Amino acid sequence: MTQARGAMQYSRLGEIARRSETVITRLMGDALADPELLSLAAGFTDNRVLPLKMIQSIVAEMGDEGGREQLQYGMNRGRPGLIEATLQWMRTYPGEAEIELDPSNVLVTNGSQQGLYLLTQAICEPGDIVLVEDPTYFVYLELLRGMGIRAMALPSDSKGRFDFAACSALLDELESSGEFKRIRAVYVMGTFANPSTRSMALQTKLDLADFMRRRLRGIPIIEDMAYRDLYFEEPHPVPSLLSIPEWRDMPVVYAGTFTKPFATGLKVGFMATRERELLEVMGRIKGHQDFGTAHFNQAILQVALETGRYAHHLQSVRSHYLAKAVLLEQSLLDHGLRDCGWSWERPSGGLLLWAQAPEGVDTRIGSAFHRASLKNKVLYVPGDLCFASGGPWDFVRLSFGALSMEQIPEAARRFCATVRECF
Amino acid sequence: MTQARGAMQYSRLGEIARRSETVITRLMGDALADPELLSLAAGFTDNRVLPLKMIQSIVAEMGDEGGREQLQYGMNRGRPGLIEATLQWMRTYPGEAEIELDPSNVLVTNGSQQGLYLLTQAICEPGDIVLVEDPTYFVYLELLRGMGIRAMALPSDSKGRFDFAACSALLDELESSGEFKRIRAVYVMGTFANPSTRSMALQTKLDLADFMRRRLRGIPIIEDMAYRDLYFEEPHPVPSLLSIPEWRDMPVVYAGTFTKPFATGLKVGFMATRERELLEVMGRIKGHQDFGTAHFNQAILQVALETGRYAHHLQSVRSHYLAKAVLLEQSLLDHGLRDCGWSWERPSGGLLLWAQAPEGVDTRIGSAFHRASLKNKVLYVPGDLCFASGGPWDFVRLSFGALSMEQIPEAARRFCATVRECF
Repeated sequence: MTQARGAMQYSRLGEIARRSETVITRLMGDALADPELLSLAAGFTDNRVLPLKMIQSIVAEMGDEGGREQLQYGMNRGRPGLIEATLQWMRTYPGEAEIELDPSNVLVTNGSQQGLYLLTQAICEPGDIVLVEDPTYFVYLELLRGMGIRAMALPSDSKGRFDFAACSALLDELESSGEFKRIRAVYVMGTFANPSTRSMALQTKLDLADFMRRRLRGIPIIEDMAYRDLYFEEPHPVPSLLSIPEWRDMPVVYAGTFTKPFATGLKVGFMATRERELLEVMGRIKGHQDFGTAHFNQAILQVALETGRYAHHLQSVRSHYLAKAVLLEQSLLDHGLRDCGWSWERPSGGLLLWAQAPEGVDTRIGSAFHRASLKNKVLYVPGDLCFASGGPWDFVRLSFGALSMEQIPEAARRFCATVRECF
Repeated sequence: MTQARGAMQYSRLGEIARRSETVITRLMGDALADPELLSLAAGFTDNRVLPLKMIQSIVAEMGDEGGREQLQYGMNRGRPGLIEATLQWMRTYPGEAEIELDPSNVLVTNGSQQGLYLLTQAICEPGDIVLVEDPTYFVYLELLRGMGIRAMALPSDSKGRFDFAACSALLDELESSGEFKRIRAVYVMGTFANPSTRSMALQTKLDLADFMRRRLRGIPIIEDMAYRDLYFEEPHPVPSLLSIPEWRDMPVVYAGTFTKPFATGLKVGFMATRERELLEVMGRIKGHQDFGTAHFNQAILQVALETGRYAHHLQSVRSHYLAKAVLLEQSLLDHGLRDCGWSWERPSGGLLLWAQAPEGVDTRIGSAFHRASLKNKVLYVPGDLCFASGGPWDFVRLSFGALSMEQIPEAARRFCATVRECF
């Protein structure tokens, strides 16, 4: 018998990938490919404030005394010095000084994205359920979809506050249908959430602890803090779940990154958790995937953190992003977006503005609105991508990260022109 | 109903990881932890020849003219300039000038390890079979084990030449047992194989093409070329499978790395294949895992390749590793290893020496020999780890990569003392 040459045979995972291009890949490709497009879509940081000179100095100062170990393989779990610096950095946030973590509680990853992937690999099978906020980080929704895992939204009100009665009803329903046992994790964003830009209030965190203790005890919760460092004026005053006593007896995983706020091209993030076994399992899977994040990049970040240059750089970056946020909002107002019935909350950190169109507007990919925006050479992220259920369809995520102070008003003009053309 | 707080629930993958620490992680940890141990185990390159100054120059020369894009996100598939430079580099090898690849045939990965992982994810399910050489790269065996995939050795003679009659018999057996259809890939090493240090002869590649066309048509073959650049005097004269006409109609995937020969701490590898759909699928899975390898590192390697500094650095490194290989061999001879009945082939590239003990010797972890070596403060890789079937037990993999010219004779002395103590 001879196996016939035919189409490639894929795994289940491979087959899902074959059938679906990821939106993140397409959006990033679009933004990088057509220089005339003004992208309010890509969650890029601003090239103009990337710390090239600082990184050049750090690299130039690397001496031979450590035996050039920065360019050698490092530990799979991460560079000890960077892990120590990570813990120190976390402790600088309000309410985190006493955070109960030691180096064995941290795993360094290729951006926080790999951390999310590893955790999901470690605890989820195809068909399992991850509970998310509504809206939530669309790249995580895609990650779940890519692994055949179902995202379900915890119901919330229009201000993004959980509606615990409705959450309970959802869990009741899942119990009735026999699906409850498929729930494997809860995923939330603590600060400057992508896309809503909201940060979680302390009371919400306490209420959520109470709810999870009653209804989802033992289920890990991921608190994604990717935008924590990118506050405009003051850090969000609420500590992470790891430092809140009411969460002490529940499995909490903190997802962080150094490269989003500092230099995305370095791609170094981390996961921190008291669940040592879970972290060990994630680390072992990482051992198969790459046996360690680029050691050179970890060395750069360690020095940036230890010498205060990381903090210093962020300080200068914050006022820059605040100015861009204000400029985008003002430009949208100048071009009459509010008059057209659109609304949004002013962000106090991050790179995003999350805006809602008047009822009935459809901003999805392929919609008349979306086609008009491409014709007007302006990109946004259709809001429906950020909802686990695929809707509503009347939101857009606008990013002021990548565009210059000169481009933002023009992008806002194009966006508002699109709005007026369509309605 | 309330889910009780209990042990963490893992996925199948997570559960495998929980039950097994990877040997690569442990060996790397051991080597990095005890400074008195002399490690002939770790496949590290030599810190003393890592191109710190060269990388410092490349980073220092990065100007603002590109808008600091090196520190920004890049394309998920890889930096176009690096991909172009990769193709140019591959074309410099004997017989590869006409290699039929364009940029759409290359995916940049976090070391070649991530490439192997992505490919395996794309085409293998738990319980599937990957056919490998005997011996083979033990980290790939661990990767497969970690994903619940079975490695089976293609039978070969004592010189590592495939025994195609025995290979046929193996496939016959798999057909009888109904397991044939679980074969998903074949994994081989083309140059300076880890651990055997052998390179594949042209005739072997032709015979293998013939065999696969007859018996395994349509099954992807991975040619791992991680050590290709690390030849001592001349590149291996045989082209990769991608450039051999007899392989033209079969799915070949080339796994390469820039960081093994140059600077492991940069962690940049690549996969090259004519199978565009397969590469696209791998790229989409990578989109979930990290949406792109660190862009800064790719920019460094692009410049190193384009300016000839990569080639220049390797030139100086080659004589260094040749000297170390000769020194290790001479030291082992001086301390009487051949007189004790051990044998090996002299390597002509790579970082390894693959030695066989006299019959009956057991070098496995936990064996008397292994315990004695730890007592004597010298580490090796037990050869059984490199065999899909877990044996024979009488090989060791010795690496001369990490140790200095001063340490190699001492490590050889300790190793030979261990040999004499045990037999």
